Amino acid sequence: MKRVYLFEEGSADMRDLLGGKGANLAEMTNIGLPVPPGFTITTDVCRGYMKRQRLPDGLMQEVREKMQIVEGRVGKKFGDPHNPLLVSVRSGAKFSMPGMMDTILNLGLNDATAEGMIRLTNNPRFVYDAYRRFVMMFSDVVMDIPKRYFEARFEALKEHLGVKQDTEVPADALQALAREFKQIVRDFGKEFPEDPYQQLEMAIEAVFRSWNNERAMIYREREKIPHDLGTACNVQAMVFGNMGEDSGTGVAFTRDPATGARELYGEFLPNAQGEDVVAGVRTPLPLSALHERMPEVYAQFLEIADRLERHYRDMMDLEFTVERGRLWMLQCRVGKRTGKAAVKIAVEMAQEGLIGRDEALLRVQPSQLDQLLHPHFDENALASGEYLLLAQGLGASPGAASGRAVFDSKRAMELGKTEPVILVRPETNPDDVGGMLASKGILTARGGNTSHAAVVARGFGIPCVAGCEAISVDEHENLFTVTVDGQTIAVREGDFISIDGSTGKVYRGAVPTVAPELTEDLHTLLQWADGFRRLRVRANADNPHDAAKALEFGAEGIGLARTEHMFFGEERLPIMQEMILAKSEKERRDALSRLLPFQRGDFFAIFEVMRGLPVTIRLIDPPLHEFLPRYEDLLREVAQLEITAPDSETLAEKRRLLQRVEELHEANPMLGLRGVRLSLLYPEIVEMQVAAILEAAAEAQRRGYEPHVEIMIPLVGHVNELKLAREYLERVAKEVMEREGVRVDYKFGTMIEIPRAALTADEIAQYAQFFSFGTNDLTQTTFGYSRDDAEGKFLAYYVEHKILPENPFVTLDRDGVGKLIRMAFDLGRAVRPDLKVGICGEHGGDPDSIAFCHEVGLDYVSCSPFRVPIARLAAAQATLRKRVQVAVDK
Amino acid sequence: MKRVYLFEEGSADMRDLLGGKGANLAEMTNIGLPVPPGFTITTDVCRGYMKRQRLPDGLMQEVREKMQIVEGRVGKKFGDPHNPLLVSVRSGAKFSMPGMMDTILNLGLNDATAEGMIRLTNNPRFVYDAYRRFVMMFSDVVMDIPKRYFEARFEALKEHLGVKQDTEVPADALQALAREFKQIVRDFGKEFPEDPYQQLEMAIEAVFRSWNNERAMIYREREKIPHDLGTACNVQAMVFGNMGEDSGTGVAFTRDPATGARELYGEFLPNAQGEDVVAGVRTPLPLSALHERMPEVYAQFLEIADRLERHYRDMMDLEFTVERGRLWMLQCRVGKRTGKAAVKIAVEMAQEGLIGRDEALLRVQPSQLDQLLHPHFDENALASGEYLLLAQGLGASPGAASGRAVFDSKRAMELGKTEPVILVRPETNPDDVGGMLASKGILTARGGNTSHAAVVARGFGIPCVAGCEAISVDEHENLFTVTVDGQTIAVREGDFISIDGSTGKVYRGAVPTVAPELTEDLHTLLQWADGFRRLRVRANADNPHDAAKALEFGAEGIGLARTEHMFFGEERLPIMQEMILAKSEKERRDALSRLLPFQRGDFFAIFEVMRGLPVTIRLIDPPLHEFLPRYEDLLREVAQLEITAPDSETLAEKRRLLQRVEELHEANPMLGLRGVRLSLLYPEIVEMQVAAILEAAAEAQRRGYEPHVEIMIPLVGHVNELKLAREYLERVAKEVMEREGVRVDYKFGTMIEIPRAALTADEIAQYAQFFSFGTNDLTQTTFGYSRDDAEGKFLAYYVEHKILPENPFVTLDRDGVGKLIRMAFDLGRAVRPDLKVGICGEHGGDPDSIAFCHEVGLDYVSCSPFRVPIARLAAAQATLRKRVQVAVDK
Repeated sequence: MKRVYLFEEGSADMRDLLGGKGANLAEMTNIGLPVPPGFTITTDVCRGYMKRQRLPDGLMQEVREKMQIVEGRVGKKFGDPHNPLLVSVRSGAKFSMPGMMDTILNLGLNDATAEGMIRLTNNPRFVYDAYRRFVMMFSDVVMDIPKRYFEARFEALKEHLGVKQDTEVPADALQALAREFKQIVRDFGKEFPEDPYQQLEMAIEAVFRSWNNERAMIYREREKIPHDLGTACNVQAMVFGNMGEDSGTGVAFTRDPATGARELYGEFLPNAQGEDVVAGVRTPLPLSALHERMPEVYAQFLEIADRLERHYRDMMDLEFTVERGRLWMLQCRVGKRTGKAAVKIAVEMAQEGLIGRDEALLRVQPSQLDQLLHPHFDENALASGEYLLLAQGLGASPGAASGRAVFDSKRAMELGKTEPVILVRPETNPDDVGGMLASKGILTARGGNTSHAAVVARGFGIPCVAGCEAISVDEHENLFTVTVDGQTIAVREGDFISIDGSTGKVYRGAVPTVAPELTEDLHTLLQWADGFRRLRVRANADNPHDAAKALEFGAEGIGLARTEHMFFGEERLPIMQEMILAKSEKERRDALSRLLPFQRGDFFAIFEVMRGLPVTIRLIDPPLHEFLPRYEDLLREVAQLEITAPDSETLAEKRRLLQRVEELHEANPMLGLRGVRLSLLYPEIVEMQVAAILEAAAEAQRRGYEPHVEIMIPLVGHVNELKLAREYLERVAKEVMEREGVRVDYKFGTMIEIPRAALTADEIAQYAQFFSFGTNDLTQTTFGYSRDDAEGKFLAYYVEHKILPENPFVTLDRDGVGKLIRMAFDLGRAVRPDLKVGICGEHGGDPDSIAFCHEVGLDYVSCSPFRVPIARLAAAQATLRKRVQVAVDK
Repeated sequence: MKRVYLFEEGSADMRDLLGGKGANLAEMTNIGLPVPPGFTITTDVCRGYMKRQRLPDGLMQEVREKMQIVEGRVGKKFGDPHNPLLVSVRSGAKFSMPGMMDTILNLGLNDATAEGMIRLTNNPRFVYDAYRRFVMMFSDVVMDIPKRYFEARFEALKEHLGVKQDTEVPADALQALAREFKQIVRDFGKEFPEDPYQQLEMAIEAVFRSWNNERAMIYREREKIPHDLGTACNVQAMVFGNMGEDSGTGVAFTRDPATGARELYGEFLPNAQGEDVVAGVRTPLPLSALHERMPEVYAQFLEIADRLERHYRDMMDLEFTVERGRLWMLQCRVGKRTGKAAVKIAVEMAQEGLIGRDEALLRVQPSQLDQLLHPHFDENALASGEYLLLAQGLGASPGAASGRAVFDSKRAMELGKTEPVILVRPETNPDDVGGMLASKGILTARGGNTSHAAVVARGFGIPCVAGCEAISVDEHENLFTVTVDGQTIAVREGDFISIDGSTGKVYRGAVPTVAPELTEDLHTLLQWADGFRRLRVRANADNPHDAAKALEFGAEGIGLARTEHMFFGEERLPIMQEMILAKSEKERRDALSRLLPFQRGDFFAIFEVMRGLPVTIRLIDPPLHEFLPRYEDLLREVAQLEITAPDSETLAEKRRLLQRVEELHEANPMLGLRGVRLSLLYPEIVEMQVAAILEAAAEAQRRGYEPHVEIMIPLVGHVNELKLAREYLERVAKEVMEREGVRVDYKFGTMIEIPRAALTADEIAQYAQFFSFGTNDLTQTTFGYSRDDAEGKFLAYYVEHKILPENPFVTLDRDGVGKLIRMAFDLGRAVRPDLKVGICGEHGGDPDSIAFCHEVGLDYVSCSPFRVPIARLAAAQATLRKRVQVAVDK
């Protein structure tokens, strides 16, 4: 098998074998661009090297043969003191891993070839500078002698000379330095190789070894790049951008990578090598500098950039060097870009006819849209360093917000009327809901992604950082403290803080935010997406505000309206608590009858917004104790009152409340009395809800809003639960319709969120007109994880240690949960071919999970309003991936 | 279709159509026994009647035709005043429902036939007594006029006559009474039918109607008899046992139904009808009375009983009447019997050659063995009325026990040294374990079948009644109170109480107990069972005592040894707590190294008992907080100390403890950090356990005990969990073996108790040498039920209202959980054909669930030692049911 490819022997589609860099160098060479000649040693060789820890026999012979061809092309000879060829040796893997692996420049230099170079260039300073750099780089990378020893020697030299800049060191001093550097190597008991081919062999091995250095491993973990790909090794004739004012080096993007604007965007540094740019020693100039200095070279570069973009049909990231007025291309690859640029470039390239609409859709990662769809912090403001990063918790409800810290819900409600506030709590409970609603953001020290704070915040679209364990909240003193770089910082009531509910970051001060926008380009792209996708996209929305937002973002209905959030309002919670504490069904019904008008109003407002579109309303799901004060708080209060006021009426009252809370207390509330179980034991609650829904729908119908109501019963595990609940709810629905004298389009269906429901979906489908997979709970029960506990206690460890490939609450677990979903889908459709099936867990907004839903054949996904555009795009991609095999650059 | 069968037209195998009574009357008739002639109207007619609410056209014509044949046989005529035939009309369903449906005797009497009867019998008092009884019975049953009106009139009559006994009322008064009874009927606006055929038609309808009376419905619910079977209706010529001293009536069993002894057992009442026995007016004599009075009749009866037993090949329950020295058989059916009798009869009948061993095995209900295998209360003592039933809770750990009530664990440990004690607690926690071990029984007011008390009690084989909510425990006053029949009773420390952990009943006083015995007969039966069954039977046992018990009961290994119970011992818990509170891995390892010798000793003791048999040891499973004081208790203490001793060291210490408990606190501990998750985060704990196991096994091996160790990793949900845990545990195992220099037979396997494990069992089987289904947790996660919460809050409601057919924690849910088990079994075996598969949840001791395990093809079931015999029998029956179709009388 061929192990070494000349650039002209390769092509862009040989990335697996030649790595990205090698493949693109080959491609550029073959389309006739000016590329310094060279060759690539394949990733196969690297893989073999990793196994056997040595290069294969005969490899260096092949290298010599290719080197001879390169020598012929450039008219120099590797190791020839009279006319020496210098080369760079660079890694280059299939997927770009910038800065992770090793590079050696100016390889081939030794005392003899250095002299030759001086004769050729007539520039001893340039040559000795290159020489001392090469010795240091080689010693560091190949011979494992830390760079700092060489740097220290250089510093000492400069001090001795009384100069500050490297450039002020004269040629002879540099020559002496190169010699001293070699002495350092000797001090380590090693000998610096003089033979260029020995240098080359050692460098090749070092490049292969660097595939498994620690930072490369970590990078691959993070980017999910397989560890067994290996890197290729590129050996290329050196060109020099630092040979005078007619030389230089630069990088450029064929379009603006930040905005996507169609204009060449880049930087140029005259009389410099690429490493100078990286080292940040000198500040690069805008690309116009090249235009001004060398208009012809610039024109040539423009043409090449244009040609490469047309050739690759994508925005390209280019590296080039000008050596004595001659342009050389050193690298080209598909350019990284912001979400905004990705959208603009994809849309405009399709409009220009460069790519098809289908390809345009595949060019944007759905996750890239996330940053466009929530208020986010101004990147420039953050970069200014003005705002101290205080801590990082869980990004529990996305969006960025700033405001004055308050530590008490009542205070939040007061201050929130006039000022933006961020509510900071150890954790929240139902008593805090008023304060939460009055706040721009919520920060808690404890609790996971399904903690009360997180759930309520997402429900109301309020940014939230939860479980930020680094902060210590002192409720009595109205402050929190946090240790940053060893310093304890206190944030007091009224101090400004800023939270990012996407990243979980908490800043001191009021970071300016940027509002989300559905740009013209994104709008266009999503319209194209709608033309391709088969999956419908709905939104999870519990109020008319979210519903309107969802519509604006293109939702085709509401897939989940949680009714329990509606009970948390300031006027409602007391009635709800009265209902729960009622001693008889009559008292309970009485309280419920006062809740009914609220619910009816809620539903009507949603129907009004969602005219003509389906609205799925889930009946009450959580256990009743969620509406009461926290058990632990009450226990504390009672314990203390027993000492301070043993005979007081307050104690007696608190004891009664505690008793009821104790009765409702559960060892594992997630698996307790909730959902349909609650509805069967206390039918009056859901009877009220269904009456409110149908009354609201009737009124909406009369006004011509065409409501399509889907009433959803949660937590069904056995067909009889659904059968029975549906029986008495149908009765209520019919009664209301008769009373109202209006026919309303309504359906009854169920969540599939318990393994047993999935396993017996054929039975359940007999009584369900639709299924909606509640993949949050289904993941909890299928894995046997309590999300609240797992995320804090072991899930991070599991993902970090690869015990689980992903957090299954973020990306749907295909092998386990997914198997149940497929099974339930097949069983349900077998019994009821027109069964409508969707998903309303948080996975409904995750692109990988959406692809899975498409594969299974679901009718729709439902996600939070802000993720609707992401879902539209992901749904289109799911269709396209199945239809066309387009290579998408990661 | 034929709707009416003469007795001679039917047979015993026509139970579906003729009901049990009709079929057996037919059978007796056909084998030539003296049965009063008659006929049976089929269950088909009843089913039609239930649908159409009327008898089918032409039925009464058929009845008349059959009646004419009966008239011919007895030489009397129905409704003929000169020679009247009287009949009984009785229900008789496929399955016996004693006393649930209606019966009418002496039908055919009216003023004219009564006169005829007097002429025939020359006994007016007998006739008028029968007449007044008939009118009352018919009015009550057929015409819906409550019996009490008639009884009141009779009482008034007796008062008027100044007599006490019915028998003292003279004939003419009875004649008048019959007339008055008819007047009562008229007062209700109805007319008593004089026409015998009209009487008959109405009676037949009433019998059919009675199939759906309330008490019959309730009975069928309880006995799981389908509601759509319907009853047959038997019309039979009357014979009279009350025609003088040469007459009488009796019942008999062909063997003793209590002990199974092979001797006729029964009662005889001279000069009486069957109803007199039922009414309890007169006390029946032993059967020997018949022998003394009518030796020839007795001899004939003996012969008939013997013949019937041989004919039916089972112990029979017989009813007979002697009319003027002539024996008539009125009923025969397979006799009900106690568990003890069932075993003895089955074994002896097989030994007599009457039935095969396979049939003998099918004759005993596995559940009947339960009463034989635990200490139970002396029935006679309970029946004496001496012991007041105080309350009933959940039977949480079977067995009966008496002792002095104590309310404090420390006190239990003191007093328990010299006296039997019953520990009474609101609920228990780890601090109570010492006291629990010192007690004969445990009674708690709160908590379900998986509460701490229940789990620990079952683990240690201590009888326990849990969740006995009727009692109010006052820990401070050392007493509990309970209200019985409106009276409040207090039980104080030192008072004797008795608890039955099977039924959940709590008695005042020390009820004598009867020790369990593996009788000779049972031993024989189980040996036969062993010859038939394919499933192996193991026991769940955590200590050598239970292991020995299990062996005694025939266990073939230990299927589940829970290691965490071993940490609760008095000397061990403090070290365990030290380990949990440790601040570093080093401190943790230090504490663990002190626990290791205890564990090694535990394991060695078990291997010593179980020589040569497999022992499955499950590594630590529960969350760590189970070993610490209760969160709520600590919270209370701290809250109060904050007021009483704000600056004390005690408060500071309790606060530290509280903080650690809070850190370990979980929203849903059942789904939290436990099982393999704990083992991956703190490998040192299970490393210690595996070292202890292997060291113990090495020592056992050296002593020639041939240990076969199966190390079981709990709560695996993803193959990587098992893979990783096994990797480092194998390492420990190999190290120990090398150090010990002994080869030990050990395997690594996993529980399948999480749905995801079942769904991905093919992956998991690659790293598991055995599977054991943990059906308790698998049921919890598949249903999404927390057992602790469900049993107290909604499961009883669900079972009662038929939302679930059974409590899925008692009988395995075939449709849901069972589907997962089948799937996991098939997936696992496909990958690893020699995969050993068992079940160790509580279902392992439930006969229906065992049958399911057999069907799926598992290798073994494992259950508590006391259920091993039940499992042996159930496993044999599972094989036999598949092999032979034997009609088994329910």
